[in-house]
Amino acid sequence: MRNNHIVIMAGGVGSRFWPLSTPEYPKQFIDILGCGRTLIQLTVDRFKGICPMSNFWVVTNVKYVDIVKKQLPDLPAEHILAEPAARNTAPCIAWACWSIRQEDPAANVVVTPADAVVMNPEEFRRVIANALSFTYKYNAIVTIGIKPSRPETGYGYIEVDTQAIKQSSVQEINEVKAFKEKPDHDTAEKYLKAGNYLWNAGIFVWNVETITECIKKYKPVIADQMDEIVNGQPSTVNSKLNEVFPNCEKISIDFAVMEPGAADGLVYTHPADFGWSDLGNWASLHDKLQKDESNNGAVGNIKLYECSNCVVHAEDARKVVLQGLDGYIVSEKKGQILVCRRSEEQRIREFSVE
Amino acid sequence: MRNNHIVIMAGGVGSRFWPLSTPEYPKQFIDILGCGRTLIQLTVDRFKGICPMSNFWVVTNVKYVDIVKKQLPDLPAEHILAEPAARNTAPCIAWACWSIRQEDPAANVVVTPADAVVMNPEEFRRVIANALSFTYKYNAIVTIGIKPSRPETGYGYIEVDTQAIKQSSVQEINEVKAFKEKPDHDTAEKYLKAGNYLWNAGIFVWNVETITECIKKYKPVIADQMDEIVNGQPSTVNSKLNEVFPNCEKISIDFAVMEPGAADGLVYTHPADFGWSDLGNWASLHDKLQKDESNNGAVGNIKLYECSNCVVHAEDARKVVLQGLDGYIVSEKKGQILVCRRSEEQRIREFSVE
Repeated sequence: MRNNHIVIMAGGVGSRFWPLSTPEYPKQFIDILGCGRTLIQLTVDRFKGICPMSNFWVVTNVKYVDIVKKQLPDLPAEHILAEPAARNTAPCIAWACWSIRQEDPAANVVVTPADAVVMNPEEFRRVIANALSFTYKYNAIVTIGIKPSRPETGYGYIEVDTQAIKQSSVQEINEVKAFKEKPDHDTAEKYLKAGNYLWNAGIFVWNVETITECIKKYKPVIADQMDEIVNGQPSTVNSKLNEVFPNCEKISIDFAVMEPGAADGLVYTHPADFGWSDLGNWASLHDKLQKDESNNGAVGNIKLYECSNCVVHAEDARKVVLQGLDGYIVSEKKGQILVCRRSEEQRIREFSVE
Repeated sequence: MRNNHIVIMAGGVGSRFWPLSTPEYPKQFIDILGCGRTLIQLTVDRFKGICPMSNFWVVTNVKYVDIVKKQLPDLPAEHILAEPAARNTAPCIAWACWSIRQEDPAANVVVTPADAVVMNPEEFRRVIANALSFTYKYNAIVTIGIKPSRPETGYGYIEVDTQAIKQSSVQEINEVKAFKEKPDHDTAEKYLKAGNYLWNAGIFVWNVETITECIKKYKPVIADQMDEIVNGQPSTVNSKLNEVFPNCEKISIDFAVMEPGAADGLVYTHPADFGWSDLGNWASLHDKLQKDESNNGAVGNIKLYECSNCVVHAEDARKVVLQGLDGYIVSEKKGQILVCRRSEEQRIREFSVE
């Protein structure tokens, strides 16, 4: 546990939840479930017992640093890694792991997004602990694979060979055969039926030696850039970061490491079923909220009359009265208001900028 | 013009426009038309040229005094009459007229609500000037009668005898035969067809001698109470007011003076057609707002997509996006939000308190 580290990626802008989520205050910093904790706070909460707070790291955009400090006051300030520019997940994760290795060369690391939801944190901790004991022993990359409950077309999939349990005394963990892009509906149906496809939740577990070696092998330029960033004199670290980081290749960890790693037999997955949702859209929020008898999910001081199938989030508003709405999204945040049919939610990003 | 005085009654709470209008900040103090002026400011504006600002008076609840001062900075502070309690229009008007008589015994007075709208202020001024020259010469009570454009059941009516133009060199002004309560639809249709029925707009014109004498005659107790309030020593006026005013009979000027006055042949009406509306509900606001090609009327930074027949008022909100609404009221003010079918607007008062 002393060597366990958690990296929370909190740089997203969450534009599909406008106006609840804005580029100034994105969804990971919002109490989107109305439970009294923001998504990033819930993310920290669910790792309780896996490692002490001093082993948490947050990678985020420089403009969110103050929000992170306020929402996670116990996080060591030097563990907030402030990206001067968004370069996708590979440079983000590389920087975190290079930084962790400096502090703890024996580190065993979990990387997680800040904005997902887990309904069964106990099972979550069991799975993470299982994966950590695997990467403690083996030079393996483990990605958590969520057992699919529907033919979802919005996620990438992980294909496993259910026969091969290799190199491991820890059951449950399987070698990844291949990563699959977001499928069309028919393919998603096929995946669901086949039983050996899992959702890629973007939660990764590895020891720091393995991941840094993999990045050196598959993305040597990024590895060199990270050496440059972390090996400077303390007085020059910040200017090095501003100089080097924005020039890093803009690439996801999936393309940079997972796919070539899988081809080399280095990537494993831990199938899991802990009520995970990426809360990527209003439909998934509606799904996770407690509903009234008319299937409305509402967060805030909301009074509903003759409303059904609505999802409402207005935590800032003093009072909201809705009458006669069926199947609408209603959201308010800091003086911006959206009322929109749920069937049109893919247009919200466009609404927010027009 | 030196003897013309304007009394603006601004004590209403406007609960049908919640949350736009609240008991803390009612509709007469709101820029409800989105024109840059509140209703009370528009009311003052439309009397420009009738009398100087030093002859304006505002009767309002004590809790709105600061709002009045802020919105009408040129109004003499001693002309804001702060009611310690709402006692309907008869005590309100009596107090104003008793106060005016002290300052100007030859005063010629117009009394008007603060929250009506007039689309043709020029014609309004012509009618008011006409009525004022009538009451300058005669001891008459003139009420402005709006020529009806529809069989409205929400207003009281004034019946006139179109033959009798009496006691007057000023044409247009007719003796009132009777006041009629809000009619049912069939009666309203009959009134409209008959041609000699007008809407009672609650705008009155008289000289101060006439109205004070009428109140003495028809409501002697109120008259005595007013004597008590205004004739005290300056040091005791306020305590007298707080002691006496809340005990005044709660009665409208219509019942207290107009109806008995009409029976005595003292009441006249000036038929008028200057685009008047009492803005009593959302339907009348929708009516007065400029509409887009889908019959939406909107005040504020509002973006509409596939919306029609909506009335939207959200001047406080930074941005409002509405999609897929037909026939709705949407309103925001100081963090309170209402979305409601227009057909259900009579329930808004109930929504606001539940």
